[in-house]
Amino acid sequence: MEILTAKGAGFCFGVKRAIDIAFAMAEKKQKGIYTVGPLIHNPQVIDRLREKGIAPTEEIEAAGISALIIRTHGIPLDLRERVSRAGCEIVDATCPFVTKAQHYAKLLNEEGYQVVILGDANHPEVKGLMSYAGENAIVLDATAELPELKSKVGIVVQTTQPVDALKRLIGKVAEKAKEMKVYNTICNSTALRLRETETMAGRVDVMIVVGGRNSANTTQLARLCASKPVKTYHIETADELSAQWFGGIKKVGITAGASTPDWIIDDVKKRIKDIGGEEADGT
Amino acid sequence: MEILTAKGAGFCFGVKRAIDIAFAMAEKKQKGIYTVGPLIHNPQVIDRLREKGIAPTEEIEAAGISALIIRTHGIPLDLRERVSRAGCEIVDATCPFVTKAQHYAKLLNEEGYQVVILGDANHPEVKGLMSYAGENAIVLDATAELPELKSKVGIVVQTTQPVDALKRLIGKVAEKAKEMKVYNTICNSTALRLRETETMAGRVDVMIVVGGRNSANTTQLARLCASKPVKTYHIETADELSAQWFGGIKKVGITAGASTPDWIIDDVKKRIKDIGGEEADGT
Repeated sequence: MEILTAKGAGFCFGVKRAIDIAFAMAEKKQKGIYTVGPLIHNPQVIDRLREKGIAPTEEIEAAGISALIIRTHGIPLDLRERVSRAGCEIVDATCPFVTKAQHYAKLLNEEGYQVVILGDANHPEVKGLMSYAGENAIVLDATAELPELKSKVGIVVQTTQPVDALKRLIGKVAEKAKEMKVYNTICNSTALRLRETETMAGRVDVMIVVGGRNSANTTQLARLCASKPVKTYHIETADELSAQWFGGIKKVGITAGASTPDWIIDDVKKRIKDIGGEEADGT
Repeated sequence: MEILTAKGAGFCFGVKRAIDIAFAMAEKKQKGIYTVGPLIHNPQVIDRLREKGIAPTEEIEAAGISALIIRTHGIPLDLRERVSRAGCEIVDATCPFVTKAQHYAKLLNEEGYQVVILGDANHPEVKGLMSYAGENAIVLDATAELPELKSKVGIVVQTTQPVDALKRLIGKVAEKAKEMKVYNTICNSTALRLRETETMAGRVDVMIVVGGRNSANTTQLARLCASKPVKTYHIETADELSAQWFGGIKKVGITAGASTPDWIIDDVKKRIKDIGGEEADGT
């Protein structure tokens, strides 16, 4: 059984940056470091951070907090203001691409556009974007029907959305709006990972998608693979693997979300090798 | 044989306005009135204007010109400047929707966008738009491959383009450009006429499309009908009709471009009645 691993699997730039910041702070043995919500969407990494003394909190005004790290997904403006008043050290680990999207949401609102955010309304990144986008802003997901819109519509995109969803949305908006301004804030590594995973899914007999079940981009990869269609398993750790999945399988593909650490991917690879896999060259 | 006529067939707002302006000037018996190029794309109307003493000219500096009427499609900026120096009365019959598109092309260029004009590079309206759009501007038609573009792309549309062409173009641009600003300058009457004609073409046995062979929007109607597919004839006047086209036909549909006058449409209707047609209620 041949094992293929996607080259773009695992930590993206923004996640790596946030993790590096947090672990560097942990190294200094500083006490009372907290993250504003989970730093990234991977429970195993959050556990490791906790072991190093860094835990997520919602209680940012609590006693004993010496530093607050803002999560990669960014936070809403009112929470950011609360954080800035908390009186402790503030470290912004918001992904720079998310910061840019927040900036564009604010700019579009200031320029008089009704801001439409393409994404998942329940995702923390989108909740953050909404807070910058003004009172007329709305969130639409890829399948949403278009509501009544103003004549000037500005669009920003949750950084992990697929580009096809953006194309569909702007096609619909162009029919209704007289003026439309679009910032394609989809991050390159997301687009690349989706493309690479799609190609791989078309060439293997089973796909193993590794990453947090609360990770939107990982879930999206799993959905994409399943829709090819190819038999797909979404797991968080190697412990979930079952030898039965690989009976009669010639090729297995491994991909992982932007918040999945290398050590988990390596564990998964090793475990599949133990089951009888042999590593092939890249994708 | 039943005859259906499209409600939106014939003169649009901009053409009607231009024709009203020209005939009102002719009424005053003023000598030396010329149009800068053909006022609209309908040879029969141009002939009528000529009978009234108003002819198209390219020689705008010639002696004996007392007034110049700018054509509905608009003219390029350098020609407009030449016209303004001609020292005669200047009457702007540019369709207000085209004027708006020119304004947006200029604005996008001033705001630092590379302007992409969706349309036919050889059409006078598009030549005019190009002159406002700056040196980086390009024209793309509906089927064009996307060339390399700058990261900020601004889009304006020839007013008579179909909205589907705009949707395809912006989908392609969104994949490449980081920022895209779109002015949907397609005029409503064009969109309406296309939709109405498409519905009609699906319900009749033969379509008669009436209008100038040099009229882009009429040609587009004929192409749309033929693609349904339904047997389609594009004619300029009733004289081109042939009784043979209607043998065994139960329903005939008539539509006409934005530059086709009512008297030509009425002639066509009358001639088809003579052949054996009977008028139905509207579309």
